[in-house]
Amino acid sequence: MTMTDPARTTQDSPTDRVRELLARMTTREKVGQLNQRLFGWQHVRRTRTGYVLSEELLAHAEHWGGIGAVYGLHRADAWSGQSWSNGIAPEAAAEVTRQLQDAVAAVSRLAVPALIVEEAPHGHQGLGGTLLPTTIGQAATFDPEWVAERAAAVAAELASVGAHVALVSGLDLARDPRWGRSEECFGEDPLLAAELTGATVAAMQGEGERIDAAHVAVVVKHLAAQGAAAGGRNAASAVIGRRELHEIHLPPARSAVLADAAGFMSAYNDIDGVPCSANRDLLTGLLRQQWGSRGIVMSDMGALDRLAGPAGGLVEAGALALNAGVDMSMGDVAFTLLEEALARGLVNEAAIDLACERVLRLKDRLGLLDGTRSVEAPARPRFPVPPVDASALVLVKNDGALPLPPGIERVAVIGPNSQDVGCLLGDYVPPLPAGDGVSIAEGLVQTLAAEVRCERGSMVRGELPGGIGRAVDLARWAEVVVLALGGSSRRRYDGEFEDNGAAAGAEDLDVSGGEGADLADVRLPGAQRELVEAVAEAVAGSGTRIVTVMVTGRAQGASPALELSDALLYAWYPGPDGGRVIAETLIGNDEPAGRMPVSVPRSSAELPVTYDRRLEWSPRYLTGPVSPETPFGAGLGYTSWTLGPVEGVPAAAGIEDVDAGRVGVRVRVTNTGRRAGSQVVQLYGRLMVPGLAPRTASLLGHSRVRLEPGESREVEVRIAPSPPALAAIDGPGRLALVAGLDSSVSFDEAVEIDLVVTAAGADSAAL
Amino acid sequence: MTMTDPARTTQDSPTDRVRELLARMTTREKVGQLNQRLFGWQHVRRTRTGYVLSEELLAHAEHWGGIGAVYGLHRADAWSGQSWSNGIAPEAAAEVTRQLQDAVAAVSRLAVPALIVEEAPHGHQGLGGTLLPTTIGQAATFDPEWVAERAAAVAAELASVGAHVALVSGLDLARDPRWGRSEECFGEDPLLAAELTGATVAAMQGEGERIDAAHVAVVVKHLAAQGAAAGGRNAASAVIGRRELHEIHLPPARSAVLADAAGFMSAYNDIDGVPCSANRDLLTGLLRQQWGSRGIVMSDMGALDRLAGPAGGLVEAGALALNAGVDMSMGDVAFTLLEEALARGLVNEAAIDLACERVLRLKDRLGLLDGTRSVEAPARPRFPVPPVDASALVLVKNDGALPLPPGIERVAVIGPNSQDVGCLLGDYVPPLPAGDGVSIAEGLVQTLAAEVRCERGSMVRGELPGGIGRAVDLARWAEVVVLALGGSSRRRYDGEFEDNGAAAGAEDLDVSGGEGADLADVRLPGAQRELVEAVAEAVAGSGTRIVTVMVTGRAQGASPALELSDALLYAWYPGPDGGRVIAETLIGNDEPAGRMPVSVPRSSAELPVTYDRRLEWSPRYLTGPVSPETPFGAGLGYTSWTLGPVEGVPAAAGIEDVDAGRVGVRVRVTNTGRRAGSQVVQLYGRLMVPGLAPRTASLLGHSRVRLEPGESREVEVRIAPSPPALAAIDGPGRLALVAGLDSSVSFDEAVEIDLVVTAAGADSAAL
Repeated sequence: MTMTDPARTTQDSPTDRVRELLARMTTREKVGQLNQRLFGWQHVRRTRTGYVLSEELLAHAEHWGGIGAVYGLHRADAWSGQSWSNGIAPEAAAEVTRQLQDAVAAVSRLAVPALIVEEAPHGHQGLGGTLLPTTIGQAATFDPEWVAERAAAVAAELASVGAHVALVSGLDLARDPRWGRSEECFGEDPLLAAELTGATVAAMQGEGERIDAAHVAVVVKHLAAQGAAAGGRNAASAVIGRRELHEIHLPPARSAVLADAAGFMSAYNDIDGVPCSANRDLLTGLLRQQWGSRGIVMSDMGALDRLAGPAGGLVEAGALALNAGVDMSMGDVAFTLLEEALARGLVNEAAIDLACERVLRLKDRLGLLDGTRSVEAPARPRFPVPPVDASALVLVKNDGALPLPPGIERVAVIGPNSQDVGCLLGDYVPPLPAGDGVSIAEGLVQTLAAEVRCERGSMVRGELPGGIGRAVDLARWAEVVVLALGGSSRRRYDGEFEDNGAAAGAEDLDVSGGEGADLADVRLPGAQRELVEAVAEAVAGSGTRIVTVMVTGRAQGASPALELSDALLYAWYPGPDGGRVIAETLIGNDEPAGRMPVSVPRSSAELPVTYDRRLEWSPRYLTGPVSPETPFGAGLGYTSWTLGPVEGVPAAAGIEDVDAGRVGVRVRVTNTGRRAGSQVVQLYGRLMVPGLAPRTASLLGHSRVRLEPGESREVEVRIAPSPPALAAIDGPGRLALVAGLDSSVSFDEAVEIDLVVTAAGADSAAL
Repeated sequence: MTMTDPARTTQDSPTDRVRELLARMTTREKVGQLNQRLFGWQHVRRTRTGYVLSEELLAHAEHWGGIGAVYGLHRADAWSGQSWSNGIAPEAAAEVTRQLQDAVAAVSRLAVPALIVEEAPHGHQGLGGTLLPTTIGQAATFDPEWVAERAAAVAAELASVGAHVALVSGLDLARDPRWGRSEECFGEDPLLAAELTGATVAAMQGEGERIDAAHVAVVVKHLAAQGAAAGGRNAASAVIGRRELHEIHLPPARSAVLADAAGFMSAYNDIDGVPCSANRDLLTGLLRQQWGSRGIVMSDMGALDRLAGPAGGLVEAGALALNAGVDMSMGDVAFTLLEEALARGLVNEAAIDLACERVLRLKDRLGLLDGTRSVEAPARPRFPVPPVDASALVLVKNDGALPLPPGIERVAVIGPNSQDVGCLLGDYVPPLPAGDGVSIAEGLVQTLAAEVRCERGSMVRGELPGGIGRAVDLARWAEVVVLALGGSSRRRYDGEFEDNGAAAGAEDLDVSGGEGADLADVRLPGAQRELVEAVAEAVAGSGTRIVTVMVTGRAQGASPALELSDALLYAWYPGPDGGRVIAETLIGNDEPAGRMPVSVPRSSAELPVTYDRRLEWSPRYLTGPVSPETPFGAGLGYTSWTLGPVEGVPAAAGIEDVDAGRVGVRVRVTNTGRRAGSQVVQLYGRLMVPGLAPRTASLLGHSRVRLEPGESREVEVRIAPSPPALAAIDGPGRLALVAGLDSSVSFDEAVEIDLVVTAAGADSAAL
């Protein structure tokens, strides 16, 4: 870069409005814009007559001459303590937001509105907010349009309550299923995650430079590599190198930049020792200078204060982060001390100006500086959300048990996740309105003509006294047993939490996932394994079929349910309506269309099993070959398929053809069954570059095809432009291509193309 | 670097002898020097009247005008198929070597002797060779002198049979206990491994520039980071970054360079995608240019041929490796094709010259070019080896059961490792002479006045029909039960092997460690857990004491033996005399003096648990805090100790003081027991550098103190010069120091020093 300000790019220039505003601001006012110190729900109290703002909020606004951002004004959940009894009611939400903005404006010299920042990892975490399947379930759709449609509805809903910024999951990769936040990832694959992240950002922000009143700005989280945390332990060190970072962990962020994401949340973890919020190579060198993002960097909650120990103090921590490229803090003390950092020479005014300019540019982009963003309080529900369907459900086994045949009279629904809705939602969700949501048992009751009886059998992680006995009795009564197993990320209002909302003391609660709930053992918990074995033994030989539904937010092993069931379906955390969707799918009204977005390990002891790890000379332990219990990409529907031999398209190609999306394979796909259905044809590559260890396989593209019974079609699957697998390659190589229906493909019959790659990532010297 | 030849340093210049020889060589002769294509044992056949060399050996020497090196002429083990019935007898070994050299010289135009390269990971892997405890056990001594004395004896023995080069383990770190080669590591800690590697190299090579006829050249293995292989799977990718590489994995190599090691073996694994044998940044940039090594780089067996796939062919693979900095291959086809690579312009003559020059310099250093190295066939045993003692034995629990009191009359020795010697040896060992070696049972028989009875109870990994029943009966008879548990790396002559000698098909054998024998689950195998529980239940309440001896080569969990035993001792693979040493220790003739060289995990599901991993905000799973079963550094003797408060020495210091070994702590150490004993006082530091995530703790120094009962002494423990913990640091920081008796130290009461570091590793841009 040869510009005088290396952190500024050509696209990266402020409007006159921002420039003039900035020129009028005092240092304190600028620093005020960089802070998101207050949690909204702590500063709005609901009374019998209305909503009252706290003195502290107004004093804060007065002190700083405004407020940069308010976090979680509408957030309602166990951690915030906001519920239907005390939180902001949906019908009042827009008005309360306006009340807050008016009060802030009244005490702010320049009357710059605060950014209203809300959590929306997979839906709006406010009372009445629309909830989508968790991110990992969205990934299972392999369908950016499906995801985009629903994300757009969430954005419109957020905008309607006066929110400006949605904090959205997407950048983390589910590389270690022990991590409780696996559910917040678009799976393990960088291409899939990049596609879905880009689609989500574009859908929520809308088209064009300005973000209009039907859309919100998206801050995607987290930058970067949090999914590589050692041991799957939340926020632990990502001990990875540059190629792994570029090929696996950065592609979703790159995709978000291309979608012009409004911001990036710097992650808690360090990468090979350097905390992301102190990583100038990452936040400035790569994100701004190399990729040209004009977005803000917002740090994760309290992440800057965590830098204080090594930095030598909070003032030093704030300076370190600002100089690295953080523009806005979340909840830290450190960034409130930037005036002192300036006085002590730890930062300069230009750095504060640049951060403030970025924040103001975002406000301008939202129409907040010229008053063009207007919010009308809507009557809810105003935004039709496309319904959740079977697109995210992954059927991994079916010995003819599904669809359930008509005429069944007795169905037993057994398991810890059989009767409750909370387990269907995932982490980062508001309490549902009373009576909302459909459990799996309720879904079956509503959908089947049969008699449906329920028994929990066990807790998620612990035993339920007498539970197995009752379950066994019930199973003997039934013609079909639906086992509702897996995990839960439900939070309880009497639970304990870390300062940042992560679960604490969750050891004592019956949960197994979500932030702060990491698991050492990712198999089915022992209590559930015993339940499965007891039920299977009870019905063995009786003709009773067992259908297992795995409700989970991670690549959780399903053994022994996988072996002992006649069919097994991963439902992820499907959302409030999940019970209905699952029931419709079990009876065959809908075909399960999801594909595994992760490699499911047989046990934590065999990790890593990600399908795209570098080719091993001898991938085995003494106990046998290392192979996943269920491979990435796997998933059955209700018909059967064949793939013909693969042909390269075109026969010879250069990297420019790849980047232009002209390269791929052609393969004949046939629906050999007796039912119409859809299939995801997956294109995998193995890149052979001299002096580099090849990855076993990398997903390079995918294409869904819908065929009638007996129908056959030639399908072309193209390599996605700038595929992550080429991100850190620089030089000549050969690319072997195969098509398959999951990632357990063989390259013995691959077609091969020569190429010379000069990839974006490869010229980043520092990172 | 400003030199014209960047791969050459000033120290790195050839003698006139080498220069003249090189000038006289043809390209083919030079390439011949770079090859170690032949495995010696395949080319010497023992007959009734003597030893006969193969035609292929002589044809090879004739074709290349000499031989660069012969691998494993004296190697005897299951893979080579060499045993006491067909291998080279010790008394004939020197003569056979001379016979080979004479024959090679006779058909070589320039009569350059071949390097005779032998395996000596922990002793000489030839018939009659002295065996030391495996490397991990040597690390448990925390005693470079102990290790050096024994390494020197092995070197003298190797030299006496005409060997020139010993392949010695030392560079790998035992970071993942699933890895079967953990036993070949000097533990998990970079400082400890660096000290012991340096001591081993210096002891085996002797003092001074020349390596005399009582010493051998050392090629240390492996460069680099093989211990970081993903999943603990042999040779898998080390997906690590630069800081991790420099702080954890490179220090032993740096130490070997400082000890002027003759060579380095490039590892099978890739580091973040780049295979070590193709890594010019590593083999040339770091090793030669930055560190100034003048040693050769020898690739691991067949590692170059493994590069062929991505490189596009064997010729390309050889060129890639030569250009990266490999000088000598082992067993590959690729390096025999360098003439073709030259003809095709893939390498240039200068690169071949430089590699050849390095090989010739090593031969010169050994006195092979001027005939000054002479070997006289010795009558064996000629080299007194200091005996193995209790220095490597780590006592991790003792509820008063040890030392065994006098007067015991009935001792039961139970367990898969109770009666056999093979389990005491580890991998990479020759067959013992008939009748050699002392099993644990035999050791107790020889040492105790008691009646000793044995029962295996179980196999190492599988059940033994009726074993538990017989073991329980025997336990009920005994006053003391010694459980001999753990693992085994024994190889069988009817076993299967990979092309490089790693175990294959070991699934079916009763082994659990060594090369090719990686384990998913590092707890005691189920069969042993059942045995322990049955025995403990049988003697519960009877007053019978249980003493467990863990024979193992990795950080293997000891639960439930740890909880159910009155005392538990890790013996590692102690060597042929292990049974005697263990018995002497159990009765208290010797005090166990070892300290844990690894962090022992509770299960593989919690990995990593290395004590020096970066500080985690919330190191826990839902099942509880992440903590090792036994921490690094732990170990009990037969007396008790207290440590006083820690005082900094000196109170203030700079990095130059650290490098000069002037900085550390002073602490009062008291033997509070009634028996003389020794203790290892350990100095741990936590480095606080702005913008870097601190490691939890790093071992910075250690000091053994021997005190009489009731004696008290002020002990100074200094930071070792250039501690690995500072290897990748560049800038100001603070170092908190504490002393402790294991790595589970608290930094609450640490003394703190300010320092500015400019470390060796920090200025390496490429790596």
